[in-house]
Amino acid sequence: MAVFNPNLLMAEALAQARLALAHGEVPIGAVLANPNGEIIARAHNLVEAQHNPLQHAEMLCLHAALAHMNDKFLLGCTLAVTLEPCPMCMAALSHARVARVVFGAYDPKSGGTVNGPRVANFMHHQPEILGGIEEAPCAALLTDFFKTLRT
Amino acid sequence: MAVFNPNLLMAEALAQARLALAHGEVPIGAVLANPNGEIIARAHNLVEAQHNPLQHAEMLCLHAALAHMNDKFLLGCTLAVTLEPCPMCMAALSHARVARVVFGAYDPKSGGTVNGPRVANFMHHQPEILGGIEEAPCAALLTDFFKTLRT
Repeated sequence: MAVFNPNLLMAEALAQARLALAHGEVPIGAVLANPNGEIIARAHNLVEAQHNPLQHAEMLCLHAALAHMNDKFLLGCTLAVTLEPCPMCMAALSHARVARVVFGAYDPKSGGTVNGPRVANFMHHQPEILGGIEEAPCAALLTDFFKTLRT
Repeated sequence: MAVFNPNLLMAEALAQARLALAHGEVPIGAVLANPNGEIIARAHNLVEAQHNPLQHAEMLCLHAALAHMNDKFLLGCTLAVTLEPCPMCMAALSHARVARVVFGAYDPKSGGTVNGPRVANFMHHQPEILGGIEEAPCAALLTDFFKTLRT
């Protein structure tokens, strides 16, 4: 079994976030690794491209990984995402029984993981949470993006 | 504009729940109506058929309606579902800016709408919530299903 390296996973999630930026999406990226640490899904937000506010990076990773595993649950898997998951995504991660959620920047306004409703506390399965991994580059991407939008 | 009739919408959601039951899914159904009251999406749980714990009736209705409307938001739309939405679905309904959520049975254990984390309270858009519509038949379908599973 591969050694679990949250920074390595976050580097891959950051690459996805930069891709999002290049496509005019809010720069948030995610990857999902199987219990051996191999990445089985990569995604970035597709909210603008698909005119669909549910197409967050985490949801797209979950759907891709579930199809890949052909199982109802992602036991032992880790999701890494550049921004704290919103309540929808955090609840979806619990439903899919992901073992661990690693995130970069904190989201006091719209997060639902360690901020806001902290939804996993109310759910059957509670993934382990690791926040603030590569926080500075993850946050900088978002800050720069919204600064550009406003000017 | 059509008169808004929650019981009529719930009758259609119940028909979807009965379809779910016939397919071996947890009997939960949903419909989504546009601002004129016309149903533009119908769905029931597909968790078992698709080995995917995110394929709740509400999520499937939202994706179908967003594709149908070709817009990022479902302004003025109403979703009716036979069971109180979970935190994932309630957050998704907020993200999609649905105007109104009508549900049948209350779900004190896994609901996230008026029970549990009540996620919409933490979100930018808060749909109007109408609970307990056709509660008895909605709840009976679920109670009977889980009773059968246990015997």
